[in-house]
Amino acid sequence: MTEKGYIYAVDFTVRDYECDIQGVVNNANYQHYLEHARHEFLISRGINFIKLHDEGTDLVVTRVEIDYKFPLRSNEKFVVRLNIAREGNLRLVFLQDIFRVPDGKLIIRAKVTGVATKEGKPVRPSNIFDLLNL
Amino acid sequence: MTEKGYIYAVDFTVRDYECDIQGVVNNANYQHYLEHARHEFLISRGINFIKLHDEGTDLVVTRVEIDYKFPLRSNEKFVVRLNIAREGNLRLVFLQDIFRVPDGKLIIRAKVTGVATKEGKPVRPSNIFDLLNL
Amino acid sequence: MTEKGYIYAVDFTVRDYECDIQGVVNNANYQHYLEHARHEFLISRGINFIKLHDEGTDLVVTRVEIDYKFPLRSNEKFVVRLNIAREGNLRLVFLQDIFRVPDGKLIIRAKVTGVATKEGKPVRPSNIFDLLNL
Amino acid sequence: MTEKGYIYAVDFTVRDYECDIQGVVNNANYQHYLEHARHEFLISRGINFIKLHDEGTDLVVTRVEIDYKFPLRSNEKFVVRLNIAREGNLRLVFLQDIFRVPDGKLIIRAKVTGVATKEGKPVRPSNIFDLLNL
Repeated sequence: MTEKGYIYAVDFTVRDYECDIQGVVNNANYQHYLEHARHEFLISRGINFIKLHDEGTDLVVTRVEIDYKFPLRSNEKFVVRLNIAREGNLRLVFLQDIFRVPDGKLIIRAKVTGVATKEGKPVRPSNIFDLLNL
Repeated sequence: MTEKGYIYAVDFTVRDYECDIQGVVNNANYQHYLEHARHEFLISRGINFIKLHDEGTDLVVTRVEIDYKFPLRSNEKFVVRLNIAREGNLRLVFLQDIFRVPDGKLIIRAKVTGVATKEGKPVRPSNIFDLLNL
Repeated sequence: MTEKGYIYAVDFTVRDYECDIQGVVNNANYQHYLEHARHEFLISRGINFIKLHDEGTDLVVTRVEIDYKFPLRSNEKFVVRLNIAREGNLRLVFLQDIFRVPDGKLIIRAKVTGVATKEGKPVRPSNIFDLLNL
Repeated sequence: MTEKGYIYAVDFTVRDYECDIQGVVNNANYQHYLEHARHEFLISRGINFIKLHDEGTDLVVTRVEIDYKFPLRSNEKFVVRLNIAREGNLRLVFLQDIFRVPDGKLIIRAKVTGVATKEGKPVRPSNIFDLLNL
C-alpha cells in the first residue's frame, strides 16, 4: 500500500453523513480523515495518542495547510497517504495527500505541523522521535 | 461587534460534543466554526450559500491555512471575526481569527481561500463580488 | 423562555454543516442539540458535566427515544425545551422537545434516560438529585 | 458475516475524533454508525439513497430507539448487524445491534423506523419493498 514518497496509507469510504448540502464531503471532515490516518500511523509505530494523553503528553496540531483539489462524493473510496519530516528541533510535519480510489485522482494535499506538549509547553519526547526515525 | 481590521463577527459557545478526549475542541471543529461564520457573513450581505447552490453556483474552499494558537475548552465563549479580500480576478480570501471571550485570548488565525464555480469551473460572479464590495 | 410543561430552554440556529445531502439537518445532529441543551441545563443548576467526570462520576445516557416529526433546514432557528423526572431510584429522564422558531412547528419529541455511574456502576448521587429537586 | 437473526453486517473501527471528553464514543456518533450501516445495506440491495433523493424520493427516519448497553473506546473494532421488517403498509423497521469485536460484547440495541416520502408525504415505493423482500 505504500507508494513512492509515502510511508503509510489508510483506506476509507465516504459515508453519507460526511457529505453536506452541496453533495460533497464537507471541508472539515477531511481534517477528520487526516487525523484518523495520523493516529493509525502512530499506533503502527507503537505510539498511542490516548495513552500519551493519559500520561501527560499531548500531541497537538499547531498548523494545517490544506489544498482542496477535487471533492469526494457519497460512497466513493479513497486513501490517505502520508510521510513525515522533522522541522527544527521540536516540530513534526505530516505530509498527507488524499487520492480517490481506484482512479488515483488527487483530492487533497495537506501539510500538518505538530508538537508534543507537557502542561502546555512544547517538549522533545526523544522516545517518540526515535520510534518515528526522526 | 466589529473591531479594527474586521468587518464581521459571530459569537459562539463551545459545546461539549465538540471536545475530544484531550478535553479541548477537536481541530476539525474549528473549520466548522469558520464555515458557519462565513455563511452568516454572506447572508448578512444578501448572499445565500444554499440558494446559490440550488441555482448552480457553488462557493467552494480551495485552500485553508490555520494556525492553532491556543485550545478552547468546554463551555468557553468565543468570537469568530473576519475580513475579506480579493486575490487576483477570481479568488476570495477570508481572514478569520478566533478569540476567546471575554479575555480576548487569540485561539486561531486562519486564511481561507475560495472561488465560485459553475459545473466545476471557476467563474467570476460579478453580483457576488459587488455585494461584497470587492 | 419557559413554557407550560417545560423548565428550561436553549435557543439554536441550524448551521449549514449540520445539514446533509437531503438538505435537512442530519438525524444524528439532533442528538447533539439535545445533549447541549441538557448540559446547559445542568450547568444552570450548578452541575458541571466535565467537572463531575474529572471527579470520577459520569452522567451517561442509557436510552434515547426520538420521534422525528418534521425536518429543520439551513439557517432555521429553533428552541430545545426540556423537563425532567425521576424514574425509580436511579434513573433520570429528560423530556426534550424541539420547536422551530418563530412558528412553533414541532420538530422532535425525545425522551432521554440517564444514570450517574462511578467506575461503570450506577450510583445515586444525592447531591445531584437535590440540585435537580428530584 | 451474517449471524442468526441478522441479514447484513458492516465492520468499523472507532476513530479518536468520535470520542468525547469522557473517553468514549459520543452518543450521537452511534447514529452515524447506524445510518452508514443502513445505507451500505441498501446499496447492497441496489437501492441508492442519494440517487433516490435526486429522483424525488427520500427515505426518512421517523423514530429511533437506542439502548446504550456499554461504551466503545478509542480504536476499538465493532460490527453493526441489522435486520429489517415491515410495519403496517408503509413503515420499514431496521433492527440494528452493535457488538464489539472480537469479544462480541453488546454495545447498542437500536430500532430505527423509516418511511419513504415524496414531497414530504409518505409513499409506498413498491420497487424498494420488492428489492428488500418485504
